[in-house]
Amino acid sequence: MIQNSQQKLYIVGIGPGSIEHLSKRAADVLQSVDTVAGYTMYIDLIRPLIADKNIISTGMMKEVDRVEAALDIALSGKSCAIVSSGDAGIYAMAGLVFEICKTKNIPITSDASLCTSQLSAESALSAKSAVSLCIEVIPGIPALCAGASLLGAPLTHDFAVISLSDLLTPWEKIEQRIEAAAQADFVIVIYNPKSKKRDWQLKKAQEIVMKYRKPTTPVGIVGSAMREAQSVEIVSLEQLDNAQVDMQTVVFIGNSTSFQYGSFMVTPRGYSEKYSI
Amino acid sequence: MIQNSQQKLYIVGIGPGSIEHLSKRAADVLQSVDTVAGYTMYIDLIRPLIADKNIISTGMMKEVDRVEAALDIALSGKSCAIVSSGDAGIYAMAGLVFEICKTKNIPITSDASLCTSQLSAESALSAKSAVSLCIEVIPGIPALCAGASLLGAPLTHDFAVISLSDLLTPWEKIEQRIEAAAQADFVIVIYNPKSKKRDWQLKKAQEIVMKYRKPTTPVGIVGSAMREAQSVEIVSLEQLDNAQVDMQTVVFIGNSTSFQYGSFMVTPRGYSEKYSI
Repeated sequence: MIQNSQQKLYIVGIGPGSIEHLSKRAADVLQSVDTVAGYTMYIDLIRPLIADKNIISTGMMKEVDRVEAALDIALSGKSCAIVSSGDAGIYAMAGLVFEICKTKNIPITSDASLCTSQLSAESALSAKSAVSLCIEVIPGIPALCAGASLLGAPLTHDFAVISLSDLLTPWEKIEQRIEAAAQADFVIVIYNPKSKKRDWQLKKAQEIVMKYRKPTTPVGIVGSAMREAQSVEIVSLEQLDNAQVDMQTVVFIGNSTSFQYGSFMVTPRGYSEKYSI
Repeated sequence: MIQNSQQKLYIVGIGPGSIEHLSKRAADVLQSVDTVAGYTMYIDLIRPLIADKNIISTGMMKEVDRVEAALDIALSGKSCAIVSSGDAGIYAMAGLVFEICKTKNIPITSDASLCTSQLSAESALSAKSAVSLCIEVIPGIPALCAGASLLGAPLTHDFAVISLSDLLTPWEKIEQRIEAAAQADFVIVIYNPKSKKRDWQLKKAQEIVMKYRKPTTPVGIVGSAMREAQSVEIVSLEQLDNAQVDMQTVVFIGNSTSFQYGSFMVTPRGYSEKYSI
């Protein structure tokens, strides 16, 4: 177990689905803190572990409020964990925490010996500029690994990860990245392919990739990996725009060597060309 | 606990470092199988969990032999887990297992209800072509997430993952991918930056990226993440060729917006441009 760490902020990736996929380290941290903050749906996934905790749970799109509340708690002298589904750093909360700390000039450190854990809550607040808040990021199994494992091995060669959400990124930049990744024969992993308000980006991405890859290129589509609503499907690139996708779906577009064998999608590393197996 | 599954092959990502970072599911699987196969160094990391198991442990570069031995065991009626450090599917063993199954025409399935677990070892072998070997990939925390967590949040925007090992991939293809990723402003994650026999590729990669990014672009360098020999360093892109790297190192080259704040490397998702925080 972890000692109760005062004035410490953890950013924790809980992995896909249930607590089955949490690391021991993440479970230990969640059980050691005073407060857990997260999107309601993710809090529900780990509810059995954190029954006795103070919980800050808010809906989607409330990320900034949630992080500010968690920072206030950590700075006031309590330990707090912000949770993300999957990994904490891939299109998840870790970046936002650091963005806010920088904007607000909150001094932070990863070095536990420099952090405020020896101070009282009052002195931590009053001495904010002299001492630092200790932040630790705990990694988790990202959706791209959970999805890949259900498909077989689509990521055994170089890959590019692209979010199709143009809420925070101009579409021109996203399109440029799809084009570059397609041309250079990366396996392409797509996050946030579609939402209720965004319905044309995936078809556009498909059109771009079709300029460089065969229409029969295998595409793996995994929804809600490791959760009750899980779905796994392999289609051809030319059928991609008809596939059922939403915000919980990750799409894996194969490279020029990806193949389907049995019910699995595989991108070979290239052993069979090099060795006689 | 998992029921003893006959004739089943698991491909298990054990995460970075020690059993601290294993998921509960991976730990359960490792404790349920008859045999565990893996590179000696990775077997050592999980030794406490698998003390009573039959172990096939071989050195680096013996991957093909190891997978063939594991397949023989699973086909002979015993359950076997092939372990990889990090995730099982990112430059790891999952791809090779499927490559070998395809080459040898071994019928495989992910559907437990179609697999050979109801048959005896003899009938499984004699009926190889009629029944299928059940394969399940168990994901783990990949080195790229472990390394990113130690740096802060370098991967909160689109990123490309490239191995510099030209053992199984022509260098021209690797170079083309570095160029495309650099030009399209992906964060670039580099696996296998250097080995005893390969010492010039990282400098070449640096030169290519320098054509598109500022010399002061932050670069995170993480060695042996979550293990005893762990090292974490942030340098500027122009200093990258002087950094200490080896086969256990993952390199994170920031995009045009990545910054260093305190001891952390961060690629912002872009909230602070969109919202006033």
